[in-house]
Amino acid sequence: MAVGPGLQDTLLPVAGVRIGTASAGIRKKNRRDLVVFELAAGSNVAAVFTTNRFCAAPVQVAREHLRQGAPRYLLVNTGNANAGTGTSGLANARRSCDAVAALTKVTAQQVLPFSTGVIGEPLPVDRIEAGLPAALQALEADAWTLAAEGIMTTDTRPKGACRQIVVNGKTVTITGISKGAGMIKPNMATMLGFVATDAVVDASLLQELLRETTESSFNAITIDGDTSTNDACVLVATGQSGASVSREQGLDSFRQALHDVLVSIAQQIVRDGEGATKFVSVQVSGGKTVAECRQAAFTVAESPLVKTALFASDPNWGRILAALGRAGIDDLDVTGVNVHLNGVLIAERGGRAASYTEEAGVAAMKPEEIVIAIDLGRGQQQATVWTCDFSYDYVKINAEYRS
Amino acid sequence: MAVGPGLQDTLLPVAGVRIGTASAGIRKKNRRDLVVFELAAGSNVAAVFTTNRFCAAPVQVAREHLRQGAPRYLLVNTGNANAGTGTSGLANARRSCDAVAALTKVTAQQVLPFSTGVIGEPLPVDRIEAGLPAALQALEADAWTLAAEGIMTTDTRPKGACRQIVVNGKTVTITGISKGAGMIKPNMATMLGFVATDAVVDASLLQELLRETTESSFNAITIDGDTSTNDACVLVATGQSGASVSREQGLDSFRQALHDVLVSIAQQIVRDGEGATKFVSVQVSGGKTVAECRQAAFTVAESPLVKTALFASDPNWGRILAALGRAGIDDLDVTGVNVHLNGVLIAERGGRAASYTEEAGVAAMKPEEIVIAIDLGRGQQQATVWTCDFSYDYVKINAEYRS
Repeated sequence: MAVGPGLQDTLLPVAGVRIGTASAGIRKKNRRDLVVFELAAGSNVAAVFTTNRFCAAPVQVAREHLRQGAPRYLLVNTGNANAGTGTSGLANARRSCDAVAALTKVTAQQVLPFSTGVIGEPLPVDRIEAGLPAALQALEADAWTLAAEGIMTTDTRPKGACRQIVVNGKTVTITGISKGAGMIKPNMATMLGFVATDAVVDASLLQELLRETTESSFNAITIDGDTSTNDACVLVATGQSGASVSREQGLDSFRQALHDVLVSIAQQIVRDGEGATKFVSVQVSGGKTVAECRQAAFTVAESPLVKTALFASDPNWGRILAALGRAGIDDLDVTGVNVHLNGVLIAERGGRAASYTEEAGVAAMKPEEIVIAIDLGRGQQQATVWTCDFSYDYVKINAEYRS
Repeated sequence: MAVGPGLQDTLLPVAGVRIGTASAGIRKKNRRDLVVFELAAGSNVAAVFTTNRFCAAPVQVAREHLRQGAPRYLLVNTGNANAGTGTSGLANARRSCDAVAALTKVTAQQVLPFSTGVIGEPLPVDRIEAGLPAALQALEADAWTLAAEGIMTTDTRPKGACRQIVVNGKTVTITGISKGAGMIKPNMATMLGFVATDAVVDASLLQELLRETTESSFNAITIDGDTSTNDACVLVATGQSGASVSREQGLDSFRQALHDVLVSIAQQIVRDGEGATKFVSVQVSGGKTVAECRQAAFTVAESPLVKTALFASDPNWGRILAALGRAGIDDLDVTGVNVHLNGVLIAERGGRAASYTEEAGVAAMKPEEIVIAIDLGRGQQQATVWTCDFSYDYVKINAEYRS
């Protein structure tokens, strides 16, 4: 059901990062469901987390550990989100970090835990403990694709991207993976994303770069408007390439490459959205502020009526206007609004375009990739949001997820 | 697919209101799609309309005519919403009022137009003109059920309610009808509702009563979060019973009866929501303000993940917590939150309830009628929202609507 390209890049190793995976039987047997990232000493780690007030136990523990010291291990399990699990959930998240610490030479505070899967069920931490030795034994540099597979839940394919740039004569690698595919609505960060580079980047610049680039990548996608309890994106800089990125050197090209990686793995999540048959870019321009452009774009992108029309390849563009009309822009003058659908002008000055024909609309809706370009006609700002359509399979996947 | 009871009351005539219907072939042949209400001279008319910025041409014209004088006719067509149709849409809405005026002895300003159906297509006003004589010829007092059928779009059954009370020794009748069934999200008013009473109620009190009672009826339901461009609810008081309702007399019982009618026809819309297999009450208590209770209730009621779990009768209550966590209550202390599902405590203090068993959860989810009771544990306010689940048929209906 996924739309268009998935993982296309070769996921190159990042010096200073080794990855081990195992099948721990957390929810299903014989499925890669445990992933450990080992980070070289001296690595800097930045992270952004969900804004959901019911944030999961691992999110709380990861935040706390991140404040306390230099992380050396990221521990990721799929199959169970350890969310809505109260104090025992927190204890289980801590116990899983203890288990990593006991098997390595680090403190529990140097381990960041991440969980994804069903909410509200106790984390089978004994299975994680039992699976850890195999995962640690498997540690190797060239295992990013295995890791991308190991963090999947309802994803139908692994997601990753890789870029290399040259900074001061030295090659810098940025490799990242992510997972979706439901409960996806941007808010600060989203789902799970793990990105690493061998560049030398100081901790505060690293955090700033992550915040900045997630805003127009992970935070610009939506599948169903449901912000997960476990969203997290981590950016590691190991420094092992010896190439230093700073405000004085290499910043622009590094930011661009990082942004490319994040946009790619964010878009791959949408392309593999639950039940997706279309990849949709909602581009809103002509707004007074970026915020109102984003608001309009998200309202259109999340409208069930727009999404089902997209699924049907039905140029029912009136639903786009209706969604815009309830987007909360109180003083929106609808007579200034123009809408293009894959290049075809369908609405002008807030009404059906004079040049519009049903045939042109139907033809514009046929491709798997749809661009809805909306001009609010009231300013110079713009924003883009990526989403997918709403199909029978979205209902099927989410109605049967636990069975 | 509708859930539980539909129209159960006998829809008694309201003295001073006559109704005529016709099949004008607006979108489909041989379907009752034109409804005219004739209101006795001296009737007071209150109305609330959609807040969608892309409000339809008939909404704009009805608002304008309402300001100009005493309405004598309500003209309703289904099959075409005359929304997103720009200036020609406005002209068509006016032309349809002119047609009524030409056939009766009133001015065009005394006609309020209402349209529902597909957005963005030109209103076939010639068909309305051609159908009007038959509708006017058919005018009779006892035709509320026919009218309820005549305003249906994707509704599977007509919706209506009726109450009688005694004011000062005289019998007062309140009869109302409504239509859904998609693009339903409360905001000021919702979809189409027509309610009439033979009580004597002055115009300002009538408007106040309508605003007040729609807040906890029409404005407390949601099917898909999509606020329609055409939402309107009209309340007519003909005064023909001679029973006067005022701040001094009969107000409480009249308000209660009116509220009952509005809640009934609002709930009937949800029960017949597109693809609905469950009728769900989301009751949020323990909030600091009514607004935050409503916000929490709507976020849960509109979460696609909650709605698909409801469809599956899956007690995936973690999705309820996750939705609450993103409801925008920034200082929500999740450890104060308790959730009951049809009386079964599923979450306490923000985590899985100690007493909860999967068996109890599964049993609680089986009925067609589900109550999700959420205690925010931080105040004394409460709010209730009604919604339905999200099924394959929602997608089917909305993907195929125009075909």
